[in-house]
Amino acid sequence: MFQKMTTKEVAARFWALAQQGQYTQIQDELYAADVRSIEASEDFLPNAAGIEKVREKDKLFNDMVEQMHDGYCTEPVVAGNFFTCAMGMDITLKGQGRINMDEVAVYEVKDGKIVLEQFFY
Amino acid sequence: MFQKMTTKEVAARFWALAQQGQYTQIQDELYAADVRSIEASEDFLPNAAGIEKVREKDKLFNDMVEQMHDGYCTEPVVAGNFFTCAMGMDITLKGQGRINMDEVAVYEVKDGKIVLEQFFY
Repeated sequence: MFQKMTTKEVAARFWALAQQGQYTQIQDELYAADVRSIEASEDFLPNAAGIEKVREKDKLFNDMVEQMHDGYCTEPVVAGNFFTCAMGMDITLKGQGRINMDEVAVYEVKDGKIVLEQFFY
Repeated sequence: MFQKMTTKEVAARFWALAQQGQYTQIQDELYAADVRSIEASEDFLPNAAGIEKVREKDKLFNDMVEQMHDGYCTEPVVAGNFFTCAMGMDITLKGQGRINMDEVAVYEVKDGKIVLEQFFY
């Protein structure tokens, strides 16, 4: 019988992939079909409901990127069905120059899948 | 001239006090007058806007508590103007028995004060 991953297991897998910058793989492997994505505001990127909308948002973001210089993700801290970490990028955005972006990210896990990502920046 | 604390400094002071369970002192010392408090849902406790409403919520919570057995707070992780940590309690609530509560907490700092606390559980 298929055993659903615990929140700790999802967080560990998330971190292993995040450290390699494999965020598409994180979505493919760990995100639920009905995942919700909540931004700090919608000035920079829109909120999204459902994995297809999350992928569209990623495409929006990737289209803004001229060059990704560096990135990091701290080891997730787990509490109940949630985990949290800090993430950041050293990035050049088209027409906006090179900036550092840092954010707190919170993830909710249900039935072994990530059902919410929420960003604070 | 008074030097406002950085987010890292606020997070360090928060953690020093949190490890001693001094959450009232955290509010008195680190919270802005217009702090907002956002719960996972309002089933358990209400959201609050303003330090007085946050204190009222604390009183609501404290009135529910029969006995606090233990608690913890992980070292905050800072990103930009935010910090995040896991927190939990081993607690007996009146009429509800003894439970473990774990949550992810996110704090926003502005001008050296905490202006947002948001909980995920």
